[in-house]
Amino acid sequence: MQDFSGYPIDEPPHSFISNSLSVDAQTLQKQIDELSTFSDTPAPSVTRILYSDKDVLARRYIKNLMGLAGLSVREDAVGNIFGRWEGYEPELAAVATGSHIDAIPYSGKYDGVVGVLGAIEAINALKRSGFKPKRSLEIISFTSEEPTRFGISCLGSRLLAGGEELAKALKTTADGQNMSFLDAARYAGYAKDQDDLSSVFLKKDHYFGFIELHIEQGPILEEEGVSIGIVTAIAAPASIKVDFEGNGGHAGAVLMPNRNDAGLAAAELALAVEKHVLESGSIDTVGTVGILELHPGAINSIPSKSHLEIDTRDIDEKRRNVVIEKIHESAIAIARKRKAILSEFKIINQDPPALSEKSIIEAIEAASKELNLTHKFMISRAYHDSLFMARISPMGMIFIPCYKGYSHRPEEYASTQDMANGVKVLALTMAKLSLQ
Amino acid sequence: MQDFSGYPIDEPPHSFISNSLSVDAQTLQKQIDELSTFSDTPAPSVTRILYSDKDVLARRYIKNLMGLAGLSVREDAVGNIFGRWEGYEPELAAVATGSHIDAIPYSGKYDGVVGVLGAIEAINALKRSGFKPKRSLEIISFTSEEPTRFGISCLGSRLLAGGEELAKALKTTADGQNMSFLDAARYAGYAKDQDDLSSVFLKKDHYFGFIELHIEQGPILEEEGVSIGIVTAIAAPASIKVDFEGNGGHAGAVLMPNRNDAGLAAAELALAVEKHVLESGSIDTVGTVGILELHPGAINSIPSKSHLEIDTRDIDEKRRNVVIEKIHESAIAIARKRKAILSEFKIINQDPPALSEKSIIEAIEAASKELNLTHKFMISRAYHDSLFMARISPMGMIFIPCYKGYSHRPEEYASTQDMANGVKVLALTMAKLSLQ
Ligand SMILES: [Mn+2]
Ligand SMILES: [Mn+2]
Ligand SMILES: [Mn+2]
Ligand SMILES: [Mn+2]
Repeated sequence: MQDFSGYPIDEPPHSFISNSLSVDAQTLQKQIDELSTFSDTPAPSVTRILYSDKDVLARRYIKNLMGLAGLSVREDAVGNIFGRWEGYEPELAAVATGSHIDAIPYSGKYDGVVGVLGAIEAINALKRSGFKPKRSLEIISFTSEEPTRFGISCLGSRLLAGGEELAKALKTTADGQNMSFLDAARYAGYAKDQDDLSSVFLKKDHYFGFIELHIEQGPILEEEGVSIGIVTAIAAPASIKVDFEGNGGHAGAVLMPNRNDAGLAAAELALAVEKHVLESGSIDTVGTVGILELHPGAINSIPSKSHLEIDTRDIDEKRRNVVIEKIHESAIAIARKRKAILSEFKIINQDPPALSEKSIIEAIEAASKELNLTHKFMISRAYHDSLFMARISPMGMIFIPCYKGYSHRPEEYASTQDMANGVKVLALTMAKLSLQ
Repeated sequence: MQDFSGYPIDEPPHSFISNSLSVDAQTLQKQIDELSTFSDTPAPSVTRILYSDKDVLARRYIKNLMGLAGLSVREDAVGNIFGRWEGYEPELAAVATGSHIDAIPYSGKYDGVVGVLGAIEAINALKRSGFKPKRSLEIISFTSEEPTRFGISCLGSRLLAGGEELAKALKTTADGQNMSFLDAARYAGYAKDQDDLSSVFLKKDHYFGFIELHIEQGPILEEEGVSIGIVTAIAAPASIKVDFEGNGGHAGAVLMPNRNDAGLAAAELALAVEKHVLESGSIDTVGTVGILELHPGAINSIPSKSHLEIDTRDIDEKRRNVVIEKIHESAIAIARKRKAILSEFKIINQDPPALSEKSIIEAIEAASKELNLTHKFMISRAYHDSLFMARISPMGMIFIPCYKGYSHRPEEYASTQDMANGVKVLALTMAKLSLQ
């Protein structure tokens, strides 16, 4: 009979939870608003850079909320923050969730934050419902998901996933003001007695599962009126730094044939990036020049140096690597044609894509169904800490709709209803996995 | 007989001067080196921005040298500095010379400076030779030839030439940090009791003639081994500010067809500027994008705003204005094609070219010949304060060779021999004009 009923035998306890789950979306919204005030640029924009004073204040705010939720809090050497609710079988691998609270310059208040403050509210909701976890539940607030300060995205999760090379590289990494990573970390109270960051590494299967709640950062869920996105794969990001150099000179005095304008080389490469991405033939290939700087940067000086930072992604790693190769060839050809020097072409990272784990996908799907929330399977085109957590743990992601798909800008917005739905699905999914 | 001899009757007194003229090139070089230390960036680069602390110190240095040369010093409301050697017929219009001492970011120590410190040495050399001027001689150190701080080039000479509109506009002009022009001027000790800057204006024919000594900022004199360039015309400069706006968004999440990337619009316009300039068909047309800024400027953000500053020049005003029109059309077309907004297209200035005065050209030529210095007639592709002084005075310019034509960069260099030649020609030209 049970084979045909559609209700597996462990259904009753979850139903009990899903009926009694109540999420306090107003408090969540208030916390999101409060956290957004720790910013280096005026509201509604948010700018919260790794290890800045505002970042330190925001971290304190998160640790305080974790404490109020009854979680035991620890931090590792780079400032990944862990809040743990001990299960009644604490020797079992825990179920983890989390996201990030850093924000790129002039961005919004929901990216990452929904997955940290929402996770705390999910735990609070589970506690209020009377649920008792078998496996422990953990919330992680990851250090520096955004690459703003040191050019390294998902710094915290990369290290957690055992980034040996990264741990080595960080000993000599510095920011744009030439402050070393370790000095910056110490300024914020981390990496106190050690240069060795391998203490951050977690073993494979340290967690039973990892789930990240996040705004979609794309328009699909909103356009289609779907409440929950279940991520099946995360696109593979790569980032590249390029420098051109020329002779510069006076904008009036140097005739056009005698120029090797580093700024025009950069402009051509930016357009070549777009061209190569469009040539891939897939809608899933994207490429962006988010940074383009000219030196000396005066209206009457021919640029003698230019610097570009390029981001390109795909759900197909091979196809993305073809784009990178073409960008490289264009950079060489442009420099040759313009008699400029391609003084740097550096691939900063070139990560493989990640697939979500079937068991986690199924748990999220079951939770959505129980909560009567519409859902769809989708691809994450933005990367997330989940991309790296997938290296050491079964992984899944929950997306919620956001206004027009806007992200990384002040207009970024998710409704309290959509956030409440996401928090409920997260809570129920964690509860399910906790009992497995 | 005299018609065939080639020696006009007023030749003997000049020959006397030219034989006894001795220029102290070592002291001049020492002063150039000293002045270059008033800089906001490390040597060998020079950065001296209008009304900055370093600019104020540099001004004090110039006024001190003028005083030591026995000149009477005055300053006007915007800080143009005048040093006057009274002639024995002081009611006659004076002969003036001068240039500027401000320096764009990361530039060199000769641009402008040779024409100010060189003028002081020219006066000193004339004094040592026993020369007595009939018409008074004046040296002007012009305020803000470079547009760095307020986006206005030749600010001081434009005002001297009676820039009514500029005087009005300056009441509401502010720099990039939103400091008003008047506050900045007051910080440096100018514009004390007045918002009205019309006190700066000089009447037409206030001067009998104006001559500027300057490095060529191009490679021709050095390549051809010629000592003195006699400028017959100054190319017509125009500058334009352009802003594009788009929706921005996350570099991973927004698919290519849904983008309206303000950065790519800027890149396309930069290349269009080059294209339209090359299409003019004349080697004398030049165009440069020296400033290109992206907002928010993060590797994983699609640019939502871009800002360009464009400089274009020609010795033919009409041809240059055609280029400007084409750039405007391209900006509109690019915005339309990319569904971005062209939120600003502002022509900041669009000055007519200036011709040197025959009488001044002939005086410089005669001086060069008397001093046995090779010379050639040439066009100034860079603009200079002379462009504006030409509106109120007969004008001419003396160019000297500079290393590889480099300017607006730390490698800018002129030999002491070439500077000494230029100073001698300047001194003798002023002496000739003084006696007319
Ligand atoms: Mn982000
Ligand atoms: Mn994020
Ligand atoms: Mn200059
Ligand atoms: Mn100059």
